[in-house]
Amino acid sequence: MKAAGRDYRLELRKAQAGDTAALSQLISAVESRRPQLDGVLHEIYTSGGGARVVGVTGPPGSGKSSLVSALLRELRQRGETVAVVAVDPSSALTGGAILGDRLRMTEHSADSGVYVRSMSARGAMGGLSRAAVDAVAILDAAGWDTIVVETVGVGQDEVDIMRIAHTVVVVSVPGLGDDVQAMKAGLLEIADLHVVNKADREGARRTVTELRSMLRLAGARKPGAWLPPVVETVALDGSGIEDLTDELARHWNWMAAAGELEHRQLASAAERIRSIARDLLLQRMGDPTVASPFADLVRQVARRQLDPHAAAHKLISGME
Amino acid sequence: MKAAGRDYRLELRKAQAGDTAALSQLISAVESRRPQLDGVLHEIYTSGGGARVVGVTGPPGSGKSSLVSALLRELRQRGETVAVVAVDPSSALTGGAILGDRLRMTEHSADSGVYVRSMSARGAMGGLSRAAVDAVAILDAAGWDTIVVETVGVGQDEVDIMRIAHTVVVVSVPGLGDDVQAMKAGLLEIADLHVVNKADREGARRTVTELRSMLRLAGARKPGAWLPPVVETVALDGSGIEDLTDELARHWNWMAAAGELEHRQLASAAERIRSIARDLLLQRMGDPTVASPFADLVRQVARRQLDPHAAAHKLISGME
Repeated sequence: MKAAGRDYRLELRKAQAGDTAALSQLISAVESRRPQLDGVLHEIYTSGGGARVVGVTGPPGSGKSSLVSALLRELRQRGETVAVVAVDPSSALTGGAILGDRLRMTEHSADSGVYVRSMSARGAMGGLSRAAVDAVAILDAAGWDTIVVETVGVGQDEVDIMRIAHTVVVVSVPGLGDDVQAMKAGLLEIADLHVVNKADREGARRTVTELRSMLRLAGARKPGAWLPPVVETVALDGSGIEDLTDELARHWNWMAAAGELEHRQLASAAERIRSIARDLLLQRMGDPTVASPFADLVRQVARRQLDPHAAAHKLISGME
Repeated sequence: MKAAGRDYRLELRKAQAGDTAALSQLISAVESRRPQLDGVLHEIYTSGGGARVVGVTGPPGSGKSSLVSALLRELRQRGETVAVVAVDPSSALTGGAILGDRLRMTEHSADSGVYVRSMSARGAMGGLSRAAVDAVAILDAAGWDTIVVETVGVGQDEVDIMRIAHTVVVVSVPGLGDDVQAMKAGLLEIADLHVVNKADREGARRTVTELRSMLRLAGARKPGAWLPPVVETVALDGSGIEDLTDELARHWNWMAAAGELEHRQLASAAERIRSIARDLLLQRMGDPTVASPFADLVRQVARRQLDPHAAAHKLISGME
């Protein structure tokens, strides 16, 4: 069957029956934004809702990929099916991220309860956030128990992607440079759970202590509020991974008991709409050298006949 | 005078006369998106166009800030006035970036030909790209010769900001981890000039050789096309900074001779419109817990009565 003629509704049925090749086809379709998929997206979004979505983010070099692999093993032992969406904001000429995923896939290749997919800016036509958000929806609709979304957590887009997660895990590591630590600061605010990975390294105790005191400072919390725990792990030998998995379950139970799940559904829905709307807007502002209303505005701005604020207002003036 | 009553047209006049306090007021106004500024933005955008905009980007830990400081010293010696806009995508609870800028400002505090400003996601209401793009326009309108825009270069937004530069400098450094090197790959495509900083480090030769062979592979260029040079620097002792400054001038002259400047003006205008339109869209998709058409859509998506694609289409359906 030609790709152009592919029946994505059928692919969805197959994916729901456990066919990971069909799953990969669907995710490739959101990446390359196949118009035939549009009719199926409604079904995908309205049939999902059963999965737990865990976001894992942290600065480069914190060992996120190894940590996610270890978490994946532990969740499998507890009987859950697990899918991973690894979001790489670079367009990775080197293919490093892809290679890492192949290694992970190889470990679990005989296990039908594991699915790993990486998405890079290169692979995704237009918005990477949109593609990632759609991929999570597909995995949810296909019936996976836990979906892990992994990002390098450096740009605003990546922080935004975390809003579709029920639980956000922020990975720190002892002894990274100032630049990287500063980058981490933006992530602290969205963390439900902290992991200090490579906890056998020098300086690990200090990192844990600093995190705990920062969390206490942010504290003065209401009774019953969630205090993000700090878990120490060594992903490479599996230390602390059981603790991490227990804390993930504890956070889920707290959310359910505290009525927080509904709040997260709203935040997640808002982010889904935002990422898609941003992407639709970008589509309308394409190549300025191709004739379009946008190209006309660009020419006027380049000649300084119009300022870009006025141009942007003109572009979106008809918006509701 | 109260901030609410501030006359930004007067501030612009003062900034054009060399008053950096007035300049800082204007940039703060774009950061906090003061509505009184709107009337002045047209004047700002249409009166600019004289500045050379240099983008400097590279992975965390590559020593961008030190490199920019050294470049700043060299440009000053050549008689140019230089303004720096340092864009930090993290919301920097630690204030690391701000501290770095204070150090840089201290070095040049007696020199009215230098201006350094950092902008973080925390400082900028809404879109950081928009604020940075407006800040560059203000500095341009105020008559600065060279404006350096510095970013960590990790997310798509940061890559996009580079599109407002005439010349993009990508900083590499020997011996960073795979994660960081993969991140860099996305930046290679937009580089006009490569710097291998910390060139006294082990592995520097290999990094230079790898870059050069990658550039040759990308080659088979048309006669007269620009081949991005690779400059080795040690920012901390100033080695290679003269070369870098010469290469910046050579790129400018090539652009002027090859008709490339006009092309860059178009790309820059397109990016200015895009960043502002994105931001305007974000404003319309605010807090989903505050009553609005957006909040209604979010509720329907959270209840799975509507899919987010349909919701996003509804939001922007009136667009031209």
